Amino acid sequence: MTSSAIIEGLKERKPAAIARAISMVENGSPGFERLLAAVHAEIGRARRIGVTGPPGAGKSTLIERLTAHFRAAGRTVGVVAVDPSSPFSGGALLGDRIRMESASGDAGVFIRSMASRGSLGGMATTTGEVADLMDAYGFERILLETVGVGQSELDVAGAADTTVVVLVPESGDGIQTMKAGLMEIADVFVVNKADRPGADRLRQELEIAMGLRHGHTFRHVPAHHGGTDAQTHGGTEASSVGAAVRPSVRASGPWEPPVVVTTAFKDEGIAELIEALDRHFAALEASGELAARRRRRLEQRTREVLERSLRQWVWSDAGPRAAVDTALADVAAGRRSPYEAAADVVERIRSREGGKG
Amino acid sequence: MTSSAIIEGLKERKPAAIARAISMVENGSPGFERLLAAVHAEIGRARRIGVTGPPGAGKSTLIERLTAHFRAAGRTVGVVAVDPSSPFSGGALLGDRIRMESASGDAGVFIRSMASRGSLGGMATTTGEVADLMDAYGFERILLETVGVGQSELDVAGAADTTVVVLVPESGDGIQTMKAGLMEIADVFVVNKADRPGADRLRQELEIAMGLRHGHTFRHVPAHHGGTDAQTHGGTEASSVGAAVRPSVRASGPWEPPVVVTTAFKDEGIAELIEALDRHFAALEASGELAARRRRRLEQRTREVLERSLRQWVWSDAGPRAAVDTALADVAAGRRSPYEAAADVVERIRSREGGKG
Repeated sequence: MTSSAIIEGLKERKPAAIARAISMVENGSPGFERLLAAVHAEIGRARRIGVTGPPGAGKSTLIERLTAHFRAAGRTVGVVAVDPSSPFSGGALLGDRIRMESASGDAGVFIRSMASRGSLGGMATTTGEVADLMDAYGFERILLETVGVGQSELDVAGAADTTVVVLVPESGDGIQTMKAGLMEIADVFVVNKADRPGADRLRQELEIAMGLRHGHTFRHVPAHHGGTDAQTHGGTEASSVGAAVRPSVRASGPWEPPVVVTTAFKDEGIAELIEALDRHFAALEASGELAARRRRRLEQRTREVLERSLRQWVWSDAGPRAAVDTALADVAAGRRSPYEAAADVVERIRSREGGKG
Repeated sequence: MTSSAIIEGLKERKPAAIARAISMVENGSPGFERLLAAVHAEIGRARRIGVTGPPGAGKSTLIERLTAHFRAAGRTVGVVAVDPSSPFSGGALLGDRIRMESASGDAGVFIRSMASRGSLGGMATTTGEVADLMDAYGFERILLETVGVGQSELDVAGAADTTVVVLVPESGDGIQTMKAGLMEIADVFVVNKADRPGADRLRQELEIAMGLRHGHTFRHVPAHHGGTDAQTHGGTEASSVGAAVRPSVRASGPWEPPVVVTTAFKDEGIAELIEALDRHFAALEASGELAARRRRRLEQRTREVLERSLRQWVWSDAGPRAAVDTALADVAAGRRSPYEAAADVVERIRSREGGKG
């Protein structure tokens, strides 16, 4: 299928076209940016809902249930799973099976598990682009699943209109600290697996932390952002010197993230979750924050695409190839450090002497 | 402290200098690349050992024990923790405390927890650069801790001479599938928390998968690398169409990853693990693979530094700023898609008309 045929097929809502389009984007196949440019005007109708949380929190089951409820209400649903531990993902090949049985065979649902590595412009960019394709195709709800470890929870918050953070009562090592990074991106909290002991305590902890119970205005800002010396040597205690505040991805204004208690595999609490999602979306629209988030997303996308395009150019034969090859050879031979070699390539581009290979 | 003073301090092995140097690199402070260039000739003496695995596998305790054993043998040790759930990391602020008590107050040990986001050139690059600083300073063993979810396990494999994959008997959701991505990067497996049920079964599973037991030559190649259409729509079963083989990060030749059983908190199996690490390092040296890995690492670093330098230039006032600003404004106003706008900026640079702002 040519990229023109794919563009036509997307307009005609052909399932084969959306599958091909996503593959093109994921693989960075020739013409993928032309494809994305062609559908750019069509995006913006879907509501994008990020679902993140630690492995084992039951994100996939929750997404399956959300999908079923959306379908029952007549909404079409796209799912992008970036969680490498997700049963939708490549890891399923090992023996797990895709568990979305209730959704399979339904043309109103499209599930895509993303390769978690090797994508040309980084996972976050590609995920956003796949969501764009689903949006342009006409899916009304797009669910983005990522595992809430490290960088990915920020990526999902950037890609979504609403971010749902899913936690479970039992706290293995790391759950506590994961909550740190997840705290600031949550628009809605889910305490899943509520049939297990400790669910109510976790809900209370979250509500206290969110300042619901006692009118606190405290917001936790984790110290992940910059370097600190203090926590590294001679037993000195950790400090929060490096805690720079990044631009908020949360709704400004009066929105306080609610805590919804669910037992997804029993379908308990899902209607309440959807109600919370609807309330958040309404608040986003009313406050103007929806438009602001989407504007930020578009600017961020433009930056990412520009950086990707630059990389493609530099490493291509049409780029400053001779300067790059010299740099790599110099470093390999021990003549220069990577830093001196890289600075030289940039200087050649900058001084307009390296514009062509 | 000026960057010249830091460079001098590193040569004189002053603890304050290494702490400052790492902060400079982590924050991308002015002069950080000059600093890295200055120490470039000094690196290559340390053995770099990556430790990865799912959250809760006990990586931090294992690293604490390894550190104690290395110190007992007279080796100095640097630790770089990139795991956001690590007690060494920023998350410790939430209530956990740094647990490396046995190592604190010892000038032969330096522990650094990395900010897990916001670094200028991506986590992997910065982690490698921090390891370089520790290497140049004279630490003989460098332990790199990352959580084995998503991209980070490949990063750690790229940054280390030897990669240790830590697993635990109990399998929560996701452990099984995490193993998929971890399988191909392991030089040494650790089955930790061996006092729990199922340790022996896990060891056997790993040995079977590695082909030890029955002379199998099968090596698992997970299908995370490319896109497939098959697993996405209409209940079609997952296929391995997208399973491209990436360049191996494992020792070629006869090395079969051994499985070492440990109970780190009881100090059981640590001596055996160190023995396995020594054997792997000897095999790397004997086969020429050590030099090959380090060559690949240097080339990869050069590429990363070049891309980072380009980004810095493009977004700086000295860069093609006017073209970039036009692109961002056009996208925001809906006049062009991000793809058309980015292509235009690259075209201006390429045609030597955008070289200066």
